[in-house]
Amino acid sequence: MGAMTLEETLATIAPLDEEAMRQAAERQAQLTKPAGALGVLEGASVTLAGIQRTCPPRAMVSPAVAVFAGDHGVHAQGVTPWPQEVTVAMVENFRAGGAAVNVLARQAGASVHVVDMGVAAVLEPGGNLIDKKIGRGTADLAVGPAMTRDQAIRSIEAGIEVAEQLVRAGHDCLLTGDMGIANTTPSAALIAAFTGAAPATVTGRGTGIDEPTLARKIDVVTGALRRPRGDAIDTLAGLGGFEHGGIAGFVLGAAARGVPVVLDGVIAGAAALVAQALSPDAIGYCFAGHRSVEPGHVVALQQLGLRPLVDLDLRLGEGTGAALAFPIVEAAGAVLREMATFDSAGVAHKDER
Amino acid sequence: MGAMTLEETLATIAPLDEEAMRQAAERQAQLTKPAGALGVLEGASVTLAGIQRTCPPRAMVSPAVAVFAGDHGVHAQGVTPWPQEVTVAMVENFRAGGAAVNVLARQAGASVHVVDMGVAAVLEPGGNLIDKKIGRGTADLAVGPAMTRDQAIRSIEAGIEVAEQLVRAGHDCLLTGDMGIANTTPSAALIAAFTGAAPATVTGRGTGIDEPTLARKIDVVTGALRRPRGDAIDTLAGLGGFEHGGIAGFVLGAAARGVPVVLDGVIAGAAALVAQALSPDAIGYCFAGHRSVEPGHVVALQQLGLRPLVDLDLRLGEGTGAALAFPIVEAAGAVLREMATFDSAGVAHKDER
Repeated sequence: MGAMTLEETLATIAPLDEEAMRQAAERQAQLTKPAGALGVLEGASVTLAGIQRTCPPRAMVSPAVAVFAGDHGVHAQGVTPWPQEVTVAMVENFRAGGAAVNVLARQAGASVHVVDMGVAAVLEPGGNLIDKKIGRGTADLAVGPAMTRDQAIRSIEAGIEVAEQLVRAGHDCLLTGDMGIANTTPSAALIAAFTGAAPATVTGRGTGIDEPTLARKIDVVTGALRRPRGDAIDTLAGLGGFEHGGIAGFVLGAAARGVPVVLDGVIAGAAALVAQALSPDAIGYCFAGHRSVEPGHVVALQQLGLRPLVDLDLRLGEGTGAALAFPIVEAAGAVLREMATFDSAGVAHKDER
Repeated sequence: MGAMTLEETLATIAPLDEEAMRQAAERQAQLTKPAGALGVLEGASVTLAGIQRTCPPRAMVSPAVAVFAGDHGVHAQGVTPWPQEVTVAMVENFRAGGAAVNVLARQAGASVHVVDMGVAAVLEPGGNLIDKKIGRGTADLAVGPAMTRDQAIRSIEAGIEVAEQLVRAGHDCLLTGDMGIANTTPSAALIAAFTGAAPATVTGRGTGIDEPTLARKIDVVTGALRRPRGDAIDTLAGLGGFEHGGIAGFVLGAAARGVPVVLDGVIAGAAALVAQALSPDAIGYCFAGHRSVEPGHVVALQQLGLRPLVDLDLRLGEGTGAALAFPIVEAAGAVLREMATFDSAGVAHKDER
């Protein structure tokens, strides 16, 4: 079973299974609790049934976080106080198991895979590194397109391949992660481009920047948006990062294989907008792991139609929000699978006496 | 080591350990992430260190949910469409492992213990049932005090005993749960009494009631609040349920033993206000598991000074919100325990180059 091209992947993605969702909603109503009392978990359980095309949904026993890493030419514009070398240092931290996403993934029972989409350094192969390097960082989106159209397609297809590889290895839920110093700048640009929101509305402080840096960042995004854009792939090429392409492909690949995806924060949100533009049905396979502090994230989630599961002022990326949210998604499925019904437990229903 | 009285318990509760909290805050600043990027998790890790009086905090490997169950004389006022017999039926469901809290506790690795504080039925002993029955339901708070002062003290001391029993059995984090048809009515009354909020502000639809029932519920709460009240124990006696006393004591007992508590929803919030009135320091040992849909819960959390960890429109009780939140509390501690520091990982800091 070879990796699918982008075109084949898009042709494979199907809407969620209506019949499994109908069964799930019906079963929710029979569980020993007042209707609706489990709030968002109830809808999540129905979505899971639709994704897996079975009711109740199967337990997800082997989640995997893929941390898509890349560097960004726009770093040269001074949009962040962090040196670019932090990207590769953090990649090594992910490989050594010492970063926040490693800790939170362990807590969630998830494995961590690091995807080199385009780090501006040569990485030693081995361990949990997946080499999909498109280039040593993108070009500077402030002065021209961040990548070529061919690079954009290759970045998406790399993400599709990663999803396929992880699903073939038995992973039954895919979590997005990202690393790339300066990557909230291309994220803001992508969100503005796909939603029509103003650059100042969607551009935030990332990992923590001062007023002059924020103003510069907004200027960069505003300038880049003035250039003409073509279709979704051209938009990704013009404004995005290699990790955005990778995550967009990861979402599409998971959807094509019928596997749920838990999105992390603003970088994943921006990438999911690319995926949505290519295949609206793919977003049905996504859960929004959390709501980031970054202002663009809320705008992206709104367009994606997703409600975040965790809302704890995180702004780290790496997949930390997705890892924190995975147990909630799995809990939603477990409720449908394991709870007693009014009949089976002999509990009287509301107004019955 | 015998069970402590309420008086001994109150004398034992100490503020959180300042030195452990200082060390935790210092360690947070050295972890390989931008300062503050893990949002609420960072503060939670500092609180955990303060509770356990050590930095980094120890892993919590054996959480336990105690579901405090009781019936309510105010059920006679028609404040809920559910028959009172549902309390005992759900208690049996908890014992058989088929309720939502059983499923979510299993997901969180927590054991479930059912405490009969005052169910209006005779329960078979055995299994995970802890018998602390004070009476077969409280008196009707619409016509007089729900319990005597002696019953109120005994209900609190029962909760202290449950906390001590679970801690002695090796449980290192205690989660509150509750069951009692009609128990959002006494919860609203307690919250109004302890916060000064208007009955209409804190009285909600519980498990789902219509307009006339809601109006009746508000009338009942308003009427009960007109009666004179004494101290916190008299207030509990006048307006509360046996499970409120139990949970208040559970919080106090855990605090006295230096063990963290994850509170569930509005019933726990009301009970925690009783505990706070008796010992403000005890609330330092509490995490707010989630934000319930019940309007009184937000008012209670505000007075407790706690931010909810999960916000998913739950309104079930039982301990479901606490069980969903436990992995987040544990993740906060794990971050502090397991993450690499900038020095250990060789990652450059912001502005360093």
